Amino acid sequence: MTLRNRTLLATAFHAPEPSGMEVLEEVLISIDAEGRISDVLKSDAPGYTEKRTALEAAGVLEVLPAGSYLLPGLVDCHVHAPQYPQLGDALDVPLEVWLQKYTFPLEARYADLAFARETYGMLVEDLLANGTTTALYFATIHQDATRALVDICLEKGQRALVGKVAMDHPENCPDFYRDASPEEAIAGTRALIDYVRSHPQNREILVHPVITPRFIPACTDAALEGLGALARECGCHVQTHCSESDWEHGYVLDRHGMTDTESLDRFGLMTRRTMLAHSNLLTASDMDRIVERGAGVAHCPLSNGYFAGAVFPLRAALEKGMHVGMGTDISGGPSASLFENARAAILVSRMFETGVDPDRAPEERASGAARRIDFRQAFHVATAGGAKALDLPVGQFTKGYLFDAIVVDTRAEKGTIRLFDDRDAGETILQKIVYGASRANIAEVYVGGQQVR
Amino acid sequence: MTLRNRTLLATAFHAPEPSGMEVLEEVLISIDAEGRISDVLKSDAPGYTEKRTALEAAGVLEVLPAGSYLLPGLVDCHVHAPQYPQLGDALDVPLEVWLQKYTFPLEARYADLAFARETYGMLVEDLLANGTTTALYFATIHQDATRALVDICLEKGQRALVGKVAMDHPENCPDFYRDASPEEAIAGTRALIDYVRSHPQNREILVHPVITPRFIPACTDAALEGLGALARECGCHVQTHCSESDWEHGYVLDRHGMTDTESLDRFGLMTRRTMLAHSNLLTASDMDRIVERGAGVAHCPLSNGYFAGAVFPLRAALEKGMHVGMGTDISGGPSASLFENARAAILVSRMFETGVDPDRAPEERASGAARRIDFRQAFHVATAGGAKALDLPVGQFTKGYLFDAIVVDTRAEKGTIRLFDDRDAGETILQKIVYGASRANIAEVYVGGQQVR
Ligand SMILES: [Zn+2]
Ligand SMILES: [Zn+2]
Repeated sequence: MTLRNRTLLATAFHAPEPSGMEVLEEVLISIDAEGRISDVLKSDAPGYTEKRTALEAAGVLEVLPAGSYLLPGLVDCHVHAPQYPQLGDALDVPLEVWLQKYTFPLEARYADLAFARETYGMLVEDLLANGTTTALYFATIHQDATRALVDICLEKGQRALVGKVAMDHPENCPDFYRDASPEEAIAGTRALIDYVRSHPQNREILVHPVITPRFIPACTDAALEGLGALARECGCHVQTHCSESDWEHGYVLDRHGMTDTESLDRFGLMTRRTMLAHSNLLTASDMDRIVERGAGVAHCPLSNGYFAGAVFPLRAALEKGMHVGMGTDISGGPSASLFENARAAILVSRMFETGVDPDRAPEERASGAARRIDFRQAFHVATAGGAKALDLPVGQFTKGYLFDAIVVDTRAEKGTIRLFDDRDAGETILQKIVYGASRANIAEVYVGGQQVR
Repeated sequence: MTLRNRTLLATAFHAPEPSGMEVLEEVLISIDAEGRISDVLKSDAPGYTEKRTALEAAGVLEVLPAGSYLLPGLVDCHVHAPQYPQLGDALDVPLEVWLQKYTFPLEARYADLAFARETYGMLVEDLLANGTTTALYFATIHQDATRALVDICLEKGQRALVGKVAMDHPENCPDFYRDASPEEAIAGTRALIDYVRSHPQNREILVHPVITPRFIPACTDAALEGLGALARECGCHVQTHCSESDWEHGYVLDRHGMTDTESLDRFGLMTRRTMLAHSNLLTASDMDRIVERGAGVAHCPLSNGYFAGAVFPLRAALEKGMHVGMGTDISGGPSASLFENARAAILVSRMFETGVDPDRAPEERASGAARRIDFRQAFHVATAGGAKALDLPVGQFTKGYLFDAIVVDTRAEKGTIRLFDDRDAGETILQKIVYGASRANIAEVYVGGQQVR
């Protein structure tokens, strides 16, 4: 089904700003022939009743059923597509084992195109089913498999940003899985950009190419330099990992004598379209620099519990005006659901504020500053926040934005939300959706006004 | 459907001990006429093939379909039944507002029996659908509503332990919602015990009565004393909250000059059948005392992130041999799913180990001890651990135990688990179930060998 050239009558929620969520009761949202929102008419606006009646009479009004609510599609700002087969596995082993025994061998398997097509197909379908209308993907070093991921996103209708991973450092990448040279890393990246930009099925620019140095330890300086030059040349998105863990942060300090943020910046990799995964260990000056460049951070609260050893200071970042999106970090995080990650973001923000160790006195245990976020900020980050960080016109119900949206059915038979009519209204419904929603509650998914689930 | 007098062929997982999970590949589990497990025959045991063939020929063998796995039913050791309408709501407000504006007024509504029957019916159905075959419930102060909860558990076939809440302290309970006197608190508790024990539908003892002082601050010493005497007299289960937060822990130190654990013990409320919710702030000597008494702790990792300000030291407790079960703490925790709580238990254990504050140096941030648990311990706590703490013969597939079990369909259409045949086997399947399962994956639920969903 398509909603192009139609108008939807729904109660909708969106959060264009971190602390500015809005309940749009029985709003009329009109979608044009290209999938853009051409009008948003609130129920208390002049002319509302007349328009609603006229649309009904013309047979172009779609009405959400009772108990169903419209939300912006979820924006996943950090996904390792090839790691989907190990989602929810190997989280009981140390990082070194996770990488060497599980992750690198798995990623290396994507030299096999048939394997890539099969698992990427499942991943994209499952993410859409979970309500993720936009995903920023790390693929692998392989050209063919990464092209297959692009093809699959186009076939299935997911808005996506896809990067061939660049990783050429002989000391920090295994022999069986790395780019043979900086030149190969750069040429492969360029080839993928050309493929995406000239793709005949990509006329609406559903898929974007991404320059993707894995992280500084995995790349030689020559590769980082070449990729930075390429970013300037093509204006593409950039993604990498930044100051994730103590080990990684310290490694970059040792090798480059500066932080990840500073080093990426001097290579030209810190742009308005850069997404930095994790970024837990930013200094105050790193934060200022990221804000200044207009770059974004992908906050991955579940993954960070397993691999970072610290919580990203989300509240402080939002207060500084930093662009922040939410990431599942499949498979460093064990869930493909951004709702589950939004819940985790709230939980860890509270643990950051209070501290965790009962053997310490409360004052010594606590962080000493306001760290908690609530469901409003988590919802913002998982939708409009991520979209803004990616510089894409999605994530909110505003005229001129593309209509990427999900319908949450709170009465779904196998769902996990219970509303009580005599008490639940307005914001409370959104709070219950954020805390309760599972895949079974996601009844419909739209990208650019087209139904994709 | 019933599995009484039948045998089930399934691949099953269980974890009788904290670090002793077992994969039972194609095991034969026989259930007797009373719903007890009469035999567990592993596929490498002598006589297996003959028995399997004979059962098949006799038409009494039930075979789980491919992709489906058998797990013990989940045991929820801490649920506030009346708070179900606010599950996933009001987690953005301070504790004081949560209690006074939301929780106490909501609980007071259960003076209305029709309201109680409706919401309790939904709760019990939803918990069963989530795989919770045993639940330990706080009800309210009301006799009729609490009896209705007992009736509903019996009707719907959930194994349950139900307590009329005792709360009579005029300073710490609101006027509109408290027992009028210690005598009333005690008499009401006794009346509920009699009701459950003489219930004509409770011949198989599916439901147990529980002595339920809300927590020390809500009770007068006279009430605590009387309830302790009643516990000695009837041998019933006891439940309360223990050393949950700094405020509560400090309050008891002030009022009684000792910790919650010490105080409950002197009142006779620390027995083999006592369940202490939370218990985050136990001293080392509290822990020893709890182990000595054989009492149990209900670990509520999600709720603790919101209201406790510290993580319960689960690993240390298990290493000391303490009985520990998992609790959702509906609605202090926002999820009715013990799987979601098991995931949270793993996550918070890792954050406890590493610390959370990126502004502190790693050594100062970390707890300095091994704190992490993995999916094996979380699964144990959510099943056999809780069962043992409740002194109930469920939670594992062992001869003589009652057959309380769930069938997890990893291929459920709206499910959230993906297995990859060429890599996933054995323990990995359980790990993916623990990290991935949502309600849609729970295909069948059995209590005492009877299908209840
Ligand atoms: Zn990553
Ligand atoms: Zn509680």
